[in-house]
Amino acid sequence: MGTTPLGSWNDGPTKRAIIEFVTAAARDGSPGFVPPQDRVAVFDNDGTLWVEKPAPVQMTFVLEKLAARLEADPSLAREQPYRAIADRDESYFRALNEQDPDAVASMVEAIGAAWEGTTLAQYEAEAVRYLDSWRHERFGVPYSGLVYQPMLELFDYLRTHGWRLFVCSGGGRDFMRVICEDTWGLPRENVIGSAPEFAYRDGVLVRRATPHGPVAVGPGKPEDVLARTGRLPAFAAGNDDVDVELLRSARFALLIVHDDDVREYAYTDCAERAHATAERYGWTTVSVKNDWNTIFKERLTQKKRSAPHQ
Amino acid sequence: MGTTPLGSWNDGPTKRAIIEFVTAAARDGSPGFVPPQDRVAVFDNDGTLWVEKPAPVQMTFVLEKLAARLEADPSLAREQPYRAIADRDESYFRALNEQDPDAVASMVEAIGAAWEGTTLAQYEAEAVRYLDSWRHERFGVPYSGLVYQPMLELFDYLRTHGWRLFVCSGGGRDFMRVICEDTWGLPRENVIGSAPEFAYRDGVLVRRATPHGPVAVGPGKPEDVLARTGRLPAFAAGNDDVDVELLRSARFALLIVHDDDVREYAYTDCAERAHATAERYGWTTVSVKNDWNTIFKERLTQKKRSAPHQ
Repeated sequence: MGTTPLGSWNDGPTKRAIIEFVTAAARDGSPGFVPPQDRVAVFDNDGTLWVEKPAPVQMTFVLEKLAARLEADPSLAREQPYRAIADRDESYFRALNEQDPDAVASMVEAIGAAWEGTTLAQYEAEAVRYLDSWRHERFGVPYSGLVYQPMLELFDYLRTHGWRLFVCSGGGRDFMRVICEDTWGLPRENVIGSAPEFAYRDGVLVRRATPHGPVAVGPGKPEDVLARTGRLPAFAAGNDDVDVELLRSARFALLIVHDDDVREYAYTDCAERAHATAERYGWTTVSVKNDWNTIFKERLTQKKRSAPHQ
Repeated sequence: MGTTPLGSWNDGPTKRAIIEFVTAAARDGSPGFVPPQDRVAVFDNDGTLWVEKPAPVQMTFVLEKLAARLEADPSLAREQPYRAIADRDESYFRALNEQDPDAVASMVEAIGAAWEGTTLAQYEAEAVRYLDSWRHERFGVPYSGLVYQPMLELFDYLRTHGWRLFVCSGGGRDFMRVICEDTWGLPRENVIGSAPEFAYRDGVLVRRATPHGPVAVGPGKPEDVLARTGRLPAFAAGNDDVDVELLRSARFALLIVHDDDVREYAYTDCAERAHATAERYGWTTVSVKNDWNTIFKERLTQKKRSAPHQ
């Protein structure tokens, strides 16, 4: 791990497929050659670059903010998502996960309103405070330890072959930008995600309530990647249903399958369509259980799980 | 030129100010140090990186497209900008140049509608065809010869000092992306500009009529730069009034002043506010006449001007 390229990846068809694609892409004259300007690789974040169970860290950050607003103004509970927070209504959050349009729209609106008028620096200070105190409820470590070591090695491997890397997540773009430099070695401009517009007022820029372009899930991912980079990705990696359109738009698609409930989590919720599409189009799939000899950046003392995840 | 850094720049206070800023920015411990992640430099395009008189090449590209649509459907002349095209009404275009909100809105709407439903590849093919046939009416050469050689040298100089370069223009983002790799040595993702959203339909991405974020002029420039890069620029260069907010947001602001009607053009229209702001805030200004010993990338045989520009 660390010295050999892809050292955390077990030998097998998946690792071989990645190496074959990447080496051919860099070899001028090979049928798999990808011109340098087209070597754009795009990665989903939650469940692709770090653990997303029991809930993505960005989601709990947002919910803590909304809960504080609800406490300050209980009348908010008349509308979603506040009603669901007040009533601990799981069905709303299930609908949100499944990209129900009404649930998504109400959450986007609430997020827009919650940080409207704040500067980027103020928003980032909140995100940093949250991330500093956050510990994973099962593993007990900060987010930075729960980044997938094999994916960081894949980043390095692609970089050394001339690829430009982007992260494209339905999660908050500005939240990810707080960690992208230290965690992924990526400049902020390489992070694409859901975000508000900014408003310039007398030299100061503040967040507006309105979103800047589409929410980066489903079709919104290739839409946003094309808008930001002027290309569709030659390489893309994801793990669930909101990544299907992104992966379909790429020449090489890598789907992470979470099947290791001893070292991480085993789940297929919100990934059924992705798994079916992978089979149909012959995507390369990663079995966390079989393909990764190390999962997390931080070597964890595996705790006994208190309860099955779902 | 070419071998010495900034060889096309004459010695003088402007060249010295640039060199002092850039070398201090790269020197850890100096008061002017700029951390590597913050070394973001943003450049306007028309009038900053290439000649914009008598009209920006992107504008004539758009007008040719709209004129063809008008010919196919004369009823379009009921609305702007088609009415102005039909009537050769200079006052509309003057208002557009001066960022009159109604004029801008009607032009944005017409551009959105003109290419709605086309793929990026279709749009690019049109732009390439246009650029291949375009010749400057005074200098008789293609656009690529009319890029400012001193600015290309500034690009190189900044790059060797660890800067990441972006172009941010009110002009069409996707138009500039056709030329950015060959002309500026910049990847497409480093081009920010006015643009539509894309719509994903069954694996195909087409342009929508609706704009993706603000038009990148005036306040829209720092708004868009902050959204795309997560930072405000540490270095910015522009030449007219729509660059004022961008330049104000930068630590080092460079304003190009077009004062050479022998080798290029001398004009102050739409730059009055920029010139006044430069004086007020002590921006570094470039006199094309005095600071540049070479203007264009291509050595032009200067033709006698047939008529003064305005």
